[in-house]
Amino acid sequence: MDWKNNQSESHKKIIVLGGDGFCGWPTSLHLSNVGHDVTIIDNLSRRNIDNELEAESLTPIQPMGTRLQAWEEVSGKKIRFCNIDIADEYEKLLQVINEEQPDVIVHFAEQRAAPYSMKSPQHKRYTVNNNINATHNVLCAIVESGRDIHLVHLGTMGVYGYGTAGMKIPEGYLNVEVKTEQGERIEQEILYPTNPGSIYHMTKSQDQLLFFYYNKNDNVRITDLHQGIVWGTNTKETKLDDRLINRFDYDGDYGTVLNRFLMQAAVGYPITVHGTGGQTRAFIHIQDTVRCIQLAIENPPARDERVMIFNQMTETHRVKDLAELVSEMTDGDIAYVTNPRKEAAENELHVENNLFLSKGLEPITLSNGLLQEVTDIAREYAYRADLSKIPATSTWTKEQKPGMPEQNTNETADDA
Amino acid sequence: MDWKNNQSESHKKIIVLGGDGFCGWPTSLHLSNVGHDVTIIDNLSRRNIDNELEAESLTPIQPMGTRLQAWEEVSGKKIRFCNIDIADEYEKLLQVINEEQPDVIVHFAEQRAAPYSMKSPQHKRYTVNNNINATHNVLCAIVESGRDIHLVHLGTMGVYGYGTAGMKIPEGYLNVEVKTEQGERIEQEILYPTNPGSIYHMTKSQDQLLFFYYNKNDNVRITDLHQGIVWGTNTKETKLDDRLINRFDYDGDYGTVLNRFLMQAAVGYPITVHGTGGQTRAFIHIQDTVRCIQLAIENPPARDERVMIFNQMTETHRVKDLAELVSEMTDGDIAYVTNPRKEAAENELHVENNLFLSKGLEPITLSNGLLQEVTDIAREYAYRADLSKIPATSTWTKEQKPGMPEQNTNETADDA
Ligand SMILES: NC(=O)c1ccc[n+]([C@@H]2O[C@H](COP(=O)([O-])OP(=O)(O)OC[C@H]3O[C@@H](n4cnc5c(N)ncnc54)[C@H](O)[C@@H]3O)[C@@H](O)[C@H]2O)c1
Ligand SMILES: NC(=O)c1ccc[n+]([C@@H]2O[C@H](COP(=O)([O-])OP(=O)(O)OC[C@H]3O[C@@H](n4cnc5c(N)ncnc54)[C@H](O)[C@@H]3O)[C@@H](O)[C@H]2O)c1
Repeated sequence: MDWKNNQSESHKKIIVLGGDGFCGWPTSLHLSNVGHDVTIIDNLSRRNIDNELEAESLTPIQPMGTRLQAWEEVSGKKIRFCNIDIADEYEKLLQVINEEQPDVIVHFAEQRAAPYSMKSPQHKRYTVNNNINATHNVLCAIVESGRDIHLVHLGTMGVYGYGTAGMKIPEGYLNVEVKTEQGERIEQEILYPTNPGSIYHMTKSQDQLLFFYYNKNDNVRITDLHQGIVWGTNTKETKLDDRLINRFDYDGDYGTVLNRFLMQAAVGYPITVHGTGGQTRAFIHIQDTVRCIQLAIENPPARDERVMIFNQMTETHRVKDLAELVSEMTDGDIAYVTNPRKEAAENELHVENNLFLSKGLEPITLSNGLLQEVTDIAREYAYRADLSKIPATSTWTKEQKPGMPEQNTNETADDA
Repeated sequence: MDWKNNQSESHKKIIVLGGDGFCGWPTSLHLSNVGHDVTIIDNLSRRNIDNELEAESLTPIQPMGTRLQAWEEVSGKKIRFCNIDIADEYEKLLQVINEEQPDVIVHFAEQRAAPYSMKSPQHKRYTVNNNINATHNVLCAIVESGRDIHLVHLGTMGVYGYGTAGMKIPEGYLNVEVKTEQGERIEQEILYPTNPGSIYHMTKSQDQLLFFYYNKNDNVRITDLHQGIVWGTNTKETKLDDRLINRFDYDGDYGTVLNRFLMQAAVGYPITVHGTGGQTRAFIHIQDTVRCIQLAIENPPARDERVMIFNQMTETHRVKDLAELVSEMTDGDIAYVTNPRKEAAENELHVENNLFLSKGLEPITLSNGLLQEVTDIAREYAYRADLSKIPATSTWTKEQKPGMPEQNTNETADDA
């Protein structure tokens, strides 16, 4: 393989929090591949949630030990792993930071499924407790370590809300005009006022306040990536060995919309659209996710700069259009069912993503034959699918009944 | 005593969370006095923090058992008490809600001192964990109970930040103009973009997102009271019996600015101004706090109304002016020391408080002889004072050195 291509300018020490997950695993491999020194921290909670939900990745992901050994065999590079709950084991987290002396911490380690966060009071409470303490512990430990560490965090497009009244969604900050007491108009730049769509999204809005505060008080360098819905499963690195295969979620809680459609079509299940399908969402391919994180690491904000916010997405689509695209490609049927979410039936979405484009991202789009690649993987592992796990059963309020056939309804199981 | 005066129109069942605290205790007595049925929940963490800090209320507050017995003797009314950690014991909290079937929950139960929240990584982490889980558990339990409960929460003026660029601080919501993609200007009302001044204040900004979300998703009725710095100690009800006496904090972590000045003057300690004293703060007397909460309870938002936000303050003052006022009144000296906070040396503050005025609040102001009353109480209990606890020792960053004499500096130990 081509080790020189894409080699990072300067070698950095990087800790990847949540490096066993869907985005974190391929990111860790990519960063290792381009020459950085990577340590993964993960408490394997996502695998434990699979146990709880009696659901599994469609792809046969390997235990961390096997993954890391395969990577060493394939690449000659070592990635270290520490099993730490960063929300609960602050002292251990701090110790790893003090030992590794990282230049960068990439933070994926949160509960990231909106439907899971709405499942029950217990799931709501777990999500808030896990995500807020995880993010706060990282910030607190960075300050306590006394080191100038760049924190790169994965946020979501979902904090913006989906009703934007003709406005293009800016990258985190919004210019507004306000009136003074004297009736004068002054222009101010503010954090985009969030309108989160679930408890999960709400924790990401709360994270933003933590970043704002630690950046202001302690000058912590922070990049917050407001990511769209990730689709695809493999990257250049995960394809190098079967044992490196990435997670593929298709269940009603963790499966995200486009991957679910492709999987449903591949296993002959109706393509399940929640509501009318009039919702518009932002998307990014997993290969671009790992590339964006590399770009974010290579372009840190200055020490006295405010939190840098990028919209990490490459295109927007209406859910209904995606269902029709997949249906045409695969001859699958579409089933409209009631929407378990509480949201507008239809919305427009215009998003700025100039920051990543200006740093050199060349977006991968839906048309590039990658839809076929996902379908092929889904077909290959169709024998592992448990079709009973496909329906989304978590609802946003007690009054809602999920999964009923409906005339006008849209896909819900995305996390963005 | 006068039971008919101020009698509440309709008898309500009320749970007061944090009802053992400085604001919560007199509020519980007042609500009981005007005819409501009151249950207090508190985990006594504030008393335990006194143990940790080796500090104590200047006034000899009594154990909860003694307090409640005294109240029953004086008023003939029973207040129930449950020792529950609402951040940690969700099931117990839910059980009390299901048993008591309250109409209203008043929520004071958070760690409320900015300096304490900045003391060390452990104190930062405790404050975030305690405050966010406390507020989230209450909201989650209200929804799980299935009851239409009005939540009245104590927030702080401190979420607004102190640099307002000639703007009058509105009650929670701000009118702004934004540009659409077509260059059109549209007016929108947004949550006032917060600029919290400490980890403590940051948790109150995060609380606002929780309120916004639960109000939107579950139609929970919520009133959020953005309170100024509370001064004074006794209220009509706490004066009825020595055993009902309210807490009076004067230490560097929990003491708030005006009460600290009055206490310092009373015990012959220099009136300690942090920084230049050019900071302007918002104030309210404890008697008005309890009255405002009664007004908030009697004027709930409608079921489908957004979160109602009141600025709960009656006047603003520059810290330096207060120090001079107290110095003149008591002949005490003023000492300027370095500011342990990270904040602007000087600021203006103009605040709207029309909502409470429109509901009938008649503000108590500094001039009403109440300053003298506080001084008298401080003199009466001066023998209990530990002067070594007066200096503020928590700093906002490691680089800051607290308590050094300085030419240009301002009071810090307030929580608002
Ligand atoms: N997948 C998407 O479509 C998408 C879209 C937008 C944003 N994001 C964000 O990207 C991040 C990663 O998402 P993902 O899809 O890889 O999720 P994932 O659940 O697959 O990975 C998260 C990883 O973090 C770990 N983790 C969680 N809590 C932890 C804790 N307290 N201590 C240690 N480890 C912990 C989990 O075990 C898991 O391996 C998330 O923060 C998510 O919000 C993802
Ligand atoms: N005192 C002020 O000047 C002031 C100003 C603005 C806002 N406020 C707000 O008003 C509220 C009350 O302030 P206060 O001055 O009475 O503070 P306090 O510390 O005297 O009272 C808070 C009470 O809540 C209890 N508590 C804390 N965490 C708890 C938990 N997890 N479970 C159960 N009980 C818990 C404490 O034991 C304490 O009795 C706070 O939320 C504070 O932020 C106070």
